[in-house]
Amino acid sequence: MKLATLKGPGRDGRLVVVRGDLRRAVEVPRIAPTLQAALDDWEALEPALRQAAARLEEGELGPEDVFPLDPAQCAAPLPRAYQFADGSAYLNHVALVRRARGAELPEELLDDPLMYQGAADGFLGPSDPIEVTDEAFGIDLEAEVAVITDDVPMAVSPQAALGHVKLVMLLNDVSLRRLIPGELAKGFGFFQGKPRSACSPVAITPDALGDAWREGKLHGALRSSINGQELGRPEAGLEMQFDFGRLIAHAARTRPLAAGTIVGAGTVSNQDPAVGSSCLAEVRTIETIERGKATTGFLKFGDRVRIEMLDAAGHTILVSPLMYCMTTGEERSFWPDMGVPGG
Amino acid sequence: MKLATLKGPGRDGRLVVVRGDLRRAVEVPRIAPTLQAALDDWEALEPALRQAAARLEEGELGPEDVFPLDPAQCAAPLPRAYQFADGSAYLNHVALVRRARGAELPEELLDDPLMYQGAADGFLGPSDPIEVTDEAFGIDLEAEVAVITDDVPMAVSPQAALGHVKLVMLLNDVSLRRLIPGELAKGFGFFQGKPRSACSPVAITPDALGDAWREGKLHGALRSSINGQELGRPEAGLEMQFDFGRLIAHAARTRPLAAGTIVGAGTVSNQDPAVGSSCLAEVRTIETIERGKATTGFLKFGDRVRIEMLDAAGHTILVSPLMYCMTTGEERSFWPDMGVPGG
Repeated sequence: MKLATLKGPGRDGRLVVVRGDLRRAVEVPRIAPTLQAALDDWEALEPALRQAAARLEEGELGPEDVFPLDPAQCAAPLPRAYQFADGSAYLNHVALVRRARGAELPEELLDDPLMYQGAADGFLGPSDPIEVTDEAFGIDLEAEVAVITDDVPMAVSPQAALGHVKLVMLLNDVSLRRLIPGELAKGFGFFQGKPRSACSPVAITPDALGDAWREGKLHGALRSSINGQELGRPEAGLEMQFDFGRLIAHAARTRPLAAGTIVGAGTVSNQDPAVGSSCLAEVRTIETIERGKATTGFLKFGDRVRIEMLDAAGHTILVSPLMYCMTTGEERSFWPDMGVPGG
Repeated sequence: MKLATLKGPGRDGRLVVVRGDLRRAVEVPRIAPTLQAALDDWEALEPALRQAAARLEEGELGPEDVFPLDPAQCAAPLPRAYQFADGSAYLNHVALVRRARGAELPEELLDDPLMYQGAADGFLGPSDPIEVTDEAFGIDLEAEVAVITDDVPMAVSPQAALGHVKLVMLLNDVSLRRLIPGELAKGFGFFQGKPRSACSPVAITPDALGDAWREGKLHGALRSSINGQELGRPEAGLEMQFDFGRLIAHAARTRPLAAGTIVGAGTVSNQDPAVGSSCLAEVRTIETIERGKATTGFLKFGDRVRIEMLDAAGHTILVSPLMYCMTTGEERSFWPDMGVPGG
């Protein structure tokens, strides 16, 4: 089953069930008005949602109910969520980015997942602009795979945690690279360096991913491009140190997780340099290592980012977030000391 | 105006307007079913809520509508929220706790607020148990003042940010001290070390706090006690390095904040040792500094914590969260390697 959220009229949009080929959709207000409402009562509502999906697939719904799915009308599957727990399960990315900061990869990280509490109060839709006040912040993408859970009990086992994965989606964990070193040096983790993330328009139940979902991981090449130029296509199922069961269990070790929790696995990254990267920070690190200097810049206002997951035949299985950066000058002048710490 | 949330039937409970003396309340389902719904549309709904408050205060509502407010029936004002941005504005606490970790207080922190992204997907009500699987985690309270905002634009000025403070409440930022050093050493901030926080039953509009709310700070002694024994009563308006305007502007520097964002100011702490502390970590640090060794333990299962704000006459102006710790063994055995890292 594939689900999406159309924008408006309220903050949480309207839940729609999407056809397998992603081209048609149907609203389901009598089952659940929003995806959060569906997740709040998933066990009770899932059968009716699946029935609607089956009727849509089989052409049993009339043309008055079925409409073309326009990604530009899509919000993030959860336009606002109660939690975003973002792991960093691809240790190749962690090692490279740390090397760029002059830091080592501690051995404990092979057994103990890195995870931060991310901003969940707003997620960008797949065609929404990424609003940043200053290019000098070092705007970067991070192409990720993320899952959405139902209610997860505290101290759940990694194995039981996997059963709480209800939906899988893609995510662009927008990062402001030049704010991060100063922020992390303060010791409390990310805040200003990780503004709102953007999501793929469609979230898919694990069963609908077929063989691409196995061992608690999504398998497939995650292709990122900027202004039509490919940045990389690493394999998401490869070199993922912790599956989603481990990541969820880590997040839930000392507290339950509410339904609608989004758990990310971090920037997808493979050791094979031929597959490229899922973020510009990695590209710059590799340039620094190889040539002593980073020559690739960060994103500029007007750049367009596209992230998509391909199946074995090269077909899109998760439609990408298509995004561009733009500036906003509003209230900027009220904050005269808005420099770039550590920049 | 004073607001509270009664538990059930849904996850977000039912919004009630509370009388000034905190003893009576009235449900307001036709104005806003939940506090989040009120905050989502605050400007439009606030007049009707204030009218209900005025009618309650003046005895114009019938006995069929008005009922005694029982804190045991109260959930947190927002039982789940989209964001919890917790600052650490009392630098005396920061300096003491850092000293306990063998770390210094960097001078930048005088100008640049410390803030972390906290768990917002669930807040405990004032009488709810704090569920922790293991006393060895080093269970601690942190008595704080927090505010709830409406929608805050990105890059808001500190001055404009103050206008977005809609409600003020108290919060117990439960901390698992023995998990924190290992977690912070990983560089991504708090996660397992900061489980669900507990909130006071009532949230109050700044105007209803009178002179106690000024210069973007709540003034009054914040009294914490454990099993009836006072731990401290530091003055919340004193030595708060950053007012709530600065804290909100810090959180909103690179992104807007959604309505219902909770912003905390961190553990209240004064330099005067005579006023005591708002957390056990401080007590232990002071013991270590004075006698070379911490003798006070952390919270034990069954302990009861009470946090309250007193007005100048010693009367409660914000009813406390009254809490106790309990254990839960559920699924504990599925996670055999749940040791205490860095413990």
